[in-house]
Amino acid sequence: MTELRKDPITGTWVILAEERGKRPAPPEKYESIITKGGFCPFCEGNEKKTPPENFALRVKGSSPNSPGWRIRVVSNKYPALTTNGELNPRGEGIYDKMNGIGLHEVIIEAPIHATRITHLSWDYIPDILEVYKNRLFNASKDPRYRYGLIFKNTGISAGATIEHNHSQLIATPVIPITIAQEMAGAKKFFDYRGRCIYCDILYQELENKKRIIIDGKSFVALAPFASRFPFETWILPKKHCSHFTSIKEEELLEMAKVLYDVLKKLDISLEEPPYNYVIHTAPFSENEIAYYHWHLEILPRTARLAGFEFGTGFHINSVPPETAAEEMRSIEI
Amino acid sequence: MTELRKDPITGTWVILAEERGKRPAPPEKYESIITKGGFCPFCEGNEKKTPPENFALRVKGSSPNSPGWRIRVVSNKYPALTTNGELNPRGEGIYDKMNGIGLHEVIIEAPIHATRITHLSWDYIPDILEVYKNRLFNASKDPRYRYGLIFKNTGISAGATIEHNHSQLIATPVIPITIAQEMAGAKKFFDYRGRCIYCDILYQELENKKRIIIDGKSFVALAPFASRFPFETWILPKKHCSHFTSIKEEELLEMAKVLYDVLKKLDISLEEPPYNYVIHTAPFSENEIAYYHWHLEILPRTARLAGFEFGTGFHINSVPPETAAEEMRSIEI
Repeated sequence: MTELRKDPITGTWVILAEERGKRPAPPEKYESIITKGGFCPFCEGNEKKTPPENFALRVKGSSPNSPGWRIRVVSNKYPALTTNGELNPRGEGIYDKMNGIGLHEVIIEAPIHATRITHLSWDYIPDILEVYKNRLFNASKDPRYRYGLIFKNTGISAGATIEHNHSQLIATPVIPITIAQEMAGAKKFFDYRGRCIYCDILYQELENKKRIIIDGKSFVALAPFASRFPFETWILPKKHCSHFTSIKEEELLEMAKVLYDVLKKLDISLEEPPYNYVIHTAPFSENEIAYYHWHLEILPRTARLAGFEFGTGFHINSVPPETAAEEMRSIEI
Repeated sequence: MTELRKDPITGTWVILAEERGKRPAPPEKYESIITKGGFCPFCEGNEKKTPPENFALRVKGSSPNSPGWRIRVVSNKYPALTTNGELNPRGEGIYDKMNGIGLHEVIIEAPIHATRITHLSWDYIPDILEVYKNRLFNASKDPRYRYGLIFKNTGISAGATIEHNHSQLIATPVIPITIAQEMAGAKKFFDYRGRCIYCDILYQELENKKRIIIDGKSFVALAPFASRFPFETWILPKKHCSHFTSIKEEELLEMAKVLYDVLKKLDISLEEPPYNYVIHTAPFSENEIAYYHWHLEILPRTARLAGFEFGTGFHINSVPPETAAEEMRSIEI
């Protein structure tokens, strides 16, 4: 059983997942990928090498945990959090901790060994987003979980350890501090101005256009004003909405096109960089809220975080978002 | 001139340092070190290859910017922030920004090409700490700067780009969000309990001992309860004090011994891992404060931050601090 511990000063949570990690690797290993080439447990035909599937999009008549799938969701073999048991929140003197209860799923996004989502044919993307929605909705039904995060790690420097393209869902029993801080900031703005800050950002960005990458019917891709990473890109729905899971069929289709196009442009511009993307959405426990606006953040990981970033929370970015947006707009795909 | 931009939602600051970065490197470069072997601008005899020195500990009679130094402080050749000019804080619609004014110095910690501070002889360490104090004090005299951070990046994965052992000082015109959040958390505890939370942590840790690494006369090295990284280690003064620059001569000497011993143990335990260390101290503008306690944090960087960490602020740590502390205690140096 893993353990969740709270930093008593900052309120940040740490998952102590001893069984997952073993010892830190020796130094020469910090720089190398783990599964390049060789056997891949995520490829079609190797279904028995993963935990049993929790969900799959399958050819009619095919059996679970056998070939015939298009997208497949399994529990993480080395989960950071586990589904069985009680939270049992408790103190240890001045400290707070609880059992590491949560859901940790892997979304294998195609049966073929594509190493980037952009190597898949376009028609996979709407299905992948549909599965994200399905898995978030499924996790939200368990009353122990207060938040669900969908994220993707592509490339070694972005933390990927298996190169076969996949995403992950982690549902947590506490609201993550990043989301809590985002929501607190958005609420402060709403209390003062009476408007959603993300809606205001969209309004201003669509007016002056210099940081816009794609201006679609219902979605906008833009380089945020205070981009932390070179070519950081956010995708936001134009219409105010706090929960990704409220997305409609036709919106999923359009979002898929915007996401695919942005990632294709990024691959061309930065020569297939490592990146993370994460869906920021409101906590499960909240109904639709006026001050929070779900969005997807793409974080290219071409720079390393160093002591300054950890000591201050500042980021140093060498590419202004206006420059990045201009280049991204100009790339033909 | 670089620019400081504030994220309107979270309040995080970003330094847009265009001249520093050029384009992101191509993918094969993300994993390689820049100055391994070859010419080193930080070695004795190459003084002309760095910006002129701002400070140095020198052999009597030797001239600035020539051999004969022991520790040498120069401006960063590619500074994230620059000293000349006015802050000129201003709006851009709903956004806030200001000129990238600040101090960015490099502290070259020995004339010989040692790649880790632990490769230096012990007697360098008190002098290095003395220089940290001197440079922080110097920066604090400029009324434009509100905070000064001393940090060290060791190893590629920790963001080092020049392997010759060195530290850096960055002084910023705003209080970094990490420090603001730490201080806010500590103040909340102080307002409720009437005590410094770091003093309480020291009390509890020294009582039960399981996370203590070194229990010295005036300093303690411990593995924090909610360690974000395997073998994360904090060094704290036992006596309450909010500013590192208040440290006394004899305390510097003891702190140097504790720091050197901890880093030696870490080198043995994790086979010379990449790491950052950062000094957390109160902002320049504050006098001695009852609720904040300066300390040094050592962050071994053997795991990569991925989408989950960026999306949530959670950290996943595979080594419990009790295990790390036990191992660190047992290592003979």
